[in-house]
Amino acid sequence: MTEQLIPGHFSPATSRANRPREVDGRLRQRARAVIPGGMYGHQSAGPLPPEYPQFMRGGRGARIWDVDGNEYVDLMCSYGPVVLGHRHPAVEAAARAQAELGDCQNGPGAVMVELAELMVATVQHADWAMFAKNGTDATTICCTIARAETGRSRILVARGAYHGAAPWCTPRLAGVTTADRANLGHYTFNDLESVTAAAREAGADLAGIVVSPFKHDAGYDQELVDPAFARGLRELCTQTGAALILDDVRCGFRLHLGSSWEPVGVLPDLSAWSKAIANGHPLAAVLGSGRYRDAAASIFVTGSFWFSAAAMAAAIATIGALRDEGAIEAMDRAGTALRAGVLEQAAARGIEVNYTGPAAMPYLTFAGDRDHALGSVFAAAAIRAGLYLHPRHNWFISAAMTDADLAKALAATDEAFAAVRARQEGGIT
Amino acid sequence: MTEQLIPGHFSPATSRANRPREVDGRLRQRARAVIPGGMYGHQSAGPLPPEYPQFMRGGRGARIWDVDGNEYVDLMCSYGPVVLGHRHPAVEAAARAQAELGDCQNGPGAVMVELAELMVATVQHADWAMFAKNGTDATTICCTIARAETGRSRILVARGAYHGAAPWCTPRLAGVTTADRANLGHYTFNDLESVTAAAREAGADLAGIVVSPFKHDAGYDQELVDPAFARGLRELCTQTGAALILDDVRCGFRLHLGSSWEPVGVLPDLSAWSKAIANGHPLAAVLGSGRYRDAAASIFVTGSFWFSAAAMAAAIATIGALRDEGAIEAMDRAGTALRAGVLEQAAARGIEVNYTGPAAMPYLTFAGDRDHALGSVFAAAAIRAGLYLHPRHNWFISAAMTDADLAKALAATDEAFAAVRARQEGGIT
Repeated sequence: MTEQLIPGHFSPATSRANRPREVDGRLRQRARAVIPGGMYGHQSAGPLPPEYPQFMRGGRGARIWDVDGNEYVDLMCSYGPVVLGHRHPAVEAAARAQAELGDCQNGPGAVMVELAELMVATVQHADWAMFAKNGTDATTICCTIARAETGRSRILVARGAYHGAAPWCTPRLAGVTTADRANLGHYTFNDLESVTAAAREAGADLAGIVVSPFKHDAGYDQELVDPAFARGLRELCTQTGAALILDDVRCGFRLHLGSSWEPVGVLPDLSAWSKAIANGHPLAAVLGSGRYRDAAASIFVTGSFWFSAAAMAAAIATIGALRDEGAIEAMDRAGTALRAGVLEQAAARGIEVNYTGPAAMPYLTFAGDRDHALGSVFAAAAIRAGLYLHPRHNWFISAAMTDADLAKALAATDEAFAAVRARQEGGIT
Repeated sequence: MTEQLIPGHFSPATSRANRPREVDGRLRQRARAVIPGGMYGHQSAGPLPPEYPQFMRGGRGARIWDVDGNEYVDLMCSYGPVVLGHRHPAVEAAARAQAELGDCQNGPGAVMVELAELMVATVQHADWAMFAKNGTDATTICCTIARAETGRSRILVARGAYHGAAPWCTPRLAGVTTADRANLGHYTFNDLESVTAAAREAGADLAGIVVSPFKHDAGYDQELVDPAFARGLRELCTQTGAALILDDVRCGFRLHLGSSWEPVGVLPDLSAWSKAIANGHPLAAVLGSGRYRDAAASIFVTGSFWFSAAAMAAAIATIGALRDEGAIEAMDRAGTALRAGVLEQAAARGIEVNYTGPAAMPYLTFAGDRDHALGSVFAAAAIRAGLYLHPRHNWFISAAMTDADLAKALAATDEAFAAVRARQEGGIT
């Protein structure tokens, strides 16, 4: 138990970047003995440059520390859940107060009703809400409700899109059977004709179409939605009676305080939420329109911790803070400044980059860098300089980013561009 | 926000049973507007007698309070998660200390390694551990690993057994497609011949057999496992190369500090855990033997909150307390006393009952009561008398049960038997 963390033992103020990762190294060694592959899932540091820590100690605002005490400006936000910054005082206070009363009980707390009312009031298309624990729970429930309502089976998804890690949607096929995918059809994001073709193939069996607010497939440049595509999907679903399902798990409450297609004027029938809705507390939600209410009541879905009250209290506080603190605007502002700074740095060094996606959820690639070799050089240099971003996944900017955080981030990206330039000049690319 | 809970506002000491359920009634009315069916899943009070509250306020030890302040002795333990009693001091302190440092981060905390080591040290068959959020995550992952390792598809489950609420296993078929169940075979619990027949039908495609430690299907008398059945399953899996998957989600760490078939001497290849492992904090786990380690590393499963540190710290504290406080023995002792008292009360009134299952997870039915009419009379009278149990689901006894809790529980069951006798004498049955 040598690595056991003693609260108070570690003071963020004493940390410095680039401390050797000795604790992390020892933990990795121990992990290899008792965790398959040493770690699994989206937080495995295995595929990241070796400079990345695997194990994290904590965070506050936009700063985080690994188990060795190295400090970073956080551009991953726990892969999305942290939207107001780490340990937002009002959110933590609400969760703690509720936990001290009751969390996992024989029934939900009053907060479940308050949260459902708040989400229905906040999200235009929503007439009702259900809660779960994983984003995958939410996307799966949407498909089940669409099937229950329509009596049909086929669900269309975009090629390469991520909608969770259950057998029907996980991106790696090990252990997945053909039957798990038997009722899926595929289309290309922003290509309405491909949707029409997939819908035609599904025919009278089309139950629903799942779509992300924008294209954020891991490892690829991001693509904002073409409003005509969004409107076309809406029209197709209305015509065929299929459910338009917006997978807002990753984007929800980062781009808009409502569902992410409200700014383009398109409302889904069902939407899947998780990640940011409780600022890091474990919660997922399904929102739906009136037509799907009876179907939602007809299915059986549940989980031992789905009705736990503390995460719901955290969600109520999160939505309140997002609104009262102008968090959406703050993220957009910080993201816009980061983009301007990064693009200026790249241009100054004559490095051709693609900086894609919304300002608050950007992603950077290098021209012609198909194997992410330059992306890895950039990320490795950034993490050495105290900036935690990702070479093959979009980044997340929290509302807690201060000018000082931004300045530290840009100092790190400048060092990272220097490393990329050196690599390019070394002729290795 | 009239129902908002103010911590400290409510003092358990001032509560009394049978306060009118006014707050609960108003919350139910509001819930019907924004939650499908007013509530869903296993915690819906809809199918329970009207005396049951839907919304809970909190708990401490073996006592719980509904939103109106009515106090109950808790025989449901949040349907399993609460094993040491509500708000166990050491567990809550560990979770809070970890949360104050960091919970949902860019990577797991050191506690993930400590917990994996502790579970491997605690559970005989385990060489490695993975963590998730829902019991359904754990059972689904076991099936996926079995398929990845064997390259086969067919999974056998017992007819009527509950293994979660994903489309492949949820007990209600609304929204479920034929393909979702295409690779399932069925057998009868404790009937080895039925397993052999199902295995024969699966032939070379048999990937695994899922089994519960004992038969605890909702609404039916429980059945302990026949050791010869458990040994037969083990032998069949060893012979065919299929995975023996023990679904220890409901029983794990309630009957034995190890997997629940260790006392009968049968070790599974894979086991699914959740509910009690963190005393109410949201966590699930998959444990496996060495043969399945590579397959476990080959699949892609993950979730936004699966690596959150606070629930893992809670699990470490829970397992420590289970061991140091002799919790398994305490639950067995309290359960044995409850059974003796209940059976004596029934006999004294000449009521024929079936009291089945392990002492710590009992279930009571009345002879010939196929529609649970007498069970509902019993439950309604018990809840009026301040005892929270369930008419169609096994009960759970926590290690926090004191002699005073037990006395209050038995006073309530005595009133409940009186109500049953009155109903029987009224000739309504």
